[in-house]
Amino acid sequence: MTASSRFDVLTIGNAIVDVIAPVEDDFLINQQLIKGSMRLIDTDEAERLYKLMASGIEVSGGCAGNTAAGAASFGVRTAFIGKVADDHLGRVFRHDIGAVGVHFATSPLIDGAPTARSMILVSPDGERTMNTFLGACQHLTAADIDPELVGSASIIYLEGYLWDPPEAKIAFRHAAEAAHAAGRDVAMTLSDSFCVDRYREEFLELLRSGTVDIVFANESEAKALYETADFNAAIAALRQDARLAAVTLGARGSLVVTREETWQVGVTPVEQLVDTTGAGDLYAAGFLAGLARGQALTNCAELGGVAAGEIISHYGARPQVSLAQLARQSGFAI
Amino acid sequence: MTASSRFDVLTIGNAIVDVIAPVEDDFLINQQLIKGSMRLIDTDEAERLYKLMASGIEVSGGCAGNTAAGAASFGVRTAFIGKVADDHLGRVFRHDIGAVGVHFATSPLIDGAPTARSMILVSPDGERTMNTFLGACQHLTAADIDPELVGSASIIYLEGYLWDPPEAKIAFRHAAEAAHAAGRDVAMTLSDSFCVDRYREEFLELLRSGTVDIVFANESEAKALYETADFNAAIAALRQDARLAAVTLGARGSLVVTREETWQVGVTPVEQLVDTTGAGDLYAAGFLAGLARGQALTNCAELGGVAAGEIISHYGARPQVSLAQLARQSGFAI
Repeated sequence: MTASSRFDVLTIGNAIVDVIAPVEDDFLINQQLIKGSMRLIDTDEAERLYKLMASGIEVSGGCAGNTAAGAASFGVRTAFIGKVADDHLGRVFRHDIGAVGVHFATSPLIDGAPTARSMILVSPDGERTMNTFLGACQHLTAADIDPELVGSASIIYLEGYLWDPPEAKIAFRHAAEAAHAAGRDVAMTLSDSFCVDRYREEFLELLRSGTVDIVFANESEAKALYETADFNAAIAALRQDARLAAVTLGARGSLVVTREETWQVGVTPVEQLVDTTGAGDLYAAGFLAGLARGQALTNCAELGGVAAGEIISHYGARPQVSLAQLARQSGFAI
Repeated sequence: MTASSRFDVLTIGNAIVDVIAPVEDDFLINQQLIKGSMRLIDTDEAERLYKLMASGIEVSGGCAGNTAAGAASFGVRTAFIGKVADDHLGRVFRHDIGAVGVHFATSPLIDGAPTARSMILVSPDGERTMNTFLGACQHLTAADIDPELVGSASIIYLEGYLWDPPEAKIAFRHAAEAAHAAGRDVAMTLSDSFCVDRYREEFLELLRSGTVDIVFANESEAKALYETADFNAAIAALRQDARLAAVTLGARGSLVVTREETWQVGVTPVEQLVDTTGAGDLYAAGFLAGLARGQALTNCAELGGVAAGEIISHYGARPQVSLAQLARQSGFAI
């Protein structure tokens, strides 16, 4: 028995502004960067890399922030919790997430590290390699998790990247408890395969203990979680561990996995692939928006595909059009 | 008789970071904003408007800065003079213009106004309405114009917008004198028709006195300069006043006007019109790059068209690909 909800979706994650610039494959090789990975960097490395980067654009990002912006663009009631500093980038982040209608009331960090930024190098094939300076993000603590706010959202969604800042990990568990205490569902994304490598045992424990009900992953994250090269084996294991899993397959769409059933849902190919940054985040946005509206799971996956398709056709991981309108034009209920 | 040049093109203008967001036509009407115009705003209005704006992207801009970045992308040796503050946006501007190979050594403003920003509202038709907070720009002075640097560039290019900050106007004249003293050419853009309305007499005097040799304009600026609705009359007058004029005609290409001749040069239509911000700036970049390389005037106009076509196919007024490569692929010499 749950109370009526104030929000449909609440996402919690690292509040990051993206600095996006194109890069040639050679640059990644020379800098010994692994294409498609996210790595954490300190101030010195951030300065060094920024000097070498091409001219770029700055746009609010952060996985859970992107998912919140996407969900709001579908017209569902959305809130976000994350830590920015009281600086220029923090104000940009706050403006952008507010401008799409997301409730964001986490107090900024005062007199501490600056707002987090991720330098995203986009290769000619649209793949992105992320270099993240966490800054203020590292100071998201359990005190920032308002149990009343958490309990007022139908689904909360947390990112695996929260395992990187030590205090955020505690905040993650705190939020999951508050959500379950209010009878809500807890979803998480595995974030990336390198993140899974860092925290495999803990992520498995989150699923097996029921701390997390719904899991979002891509192929390489699913395989990394079970340390297998066999995708089918990973899906079989995931089916046992999670009540519901949504696994993205790139251009082939996604797989929706429950204890009893599996559906593969395709996507319409995009005309122009520019930058895959945010594809997974926006897939989750569409899926969660569908869930919040009580749609069938296959329709949730279709909505995820619509949102991911929009985001990869331009630089930046925040939608440039109304996703609700786009979904309806594509013939999907929302 | 001129000494050999260190730079091909030197541009001088307001150093601005653009904050770009999509907007519906209704918003412009409700806010009483004139579509396609640039207006100057103060801190309070900047704050008010930013609150109302949609989620956006930040990207280095400023007309002369865009032109410098474009010229460098064509592979010509380029320098820029403009004033930023020693703040986050100032560092972004410095990084971005340096990353494309533009020499930029103007000292930042310390303990003064923040770096200038322009809130650019992009309508569904790709038109942009600019709201500019000049900040540090207003403190570009004659002291920032190094006569040796100015004299070392084959062509200097100044923006009409420099007439807005009172001290920058003096810097403009100072630069033109230094260039002519070194036997160089002075080009200027009329910037926009509202700017022409503000400074018509002074702009005409710049042309008629020979302070400016080459003028860049679009149709509405040319008509505004001579207070006529008759485009042909404006061109006839411009032919008398300027040694060389390049007048952009939007999708119809451009007109190159000398005392003796006129050429109309077409453009390849773009596949996707996203945002016309920077179209004129990049046209000038291509034209100046061609001039610097001693190309025929019609080829200069073609290069301008290639650069403008690239810039309007995405958000932001800085090229996302090598313009030299793009021009060669399109069959033009550079």
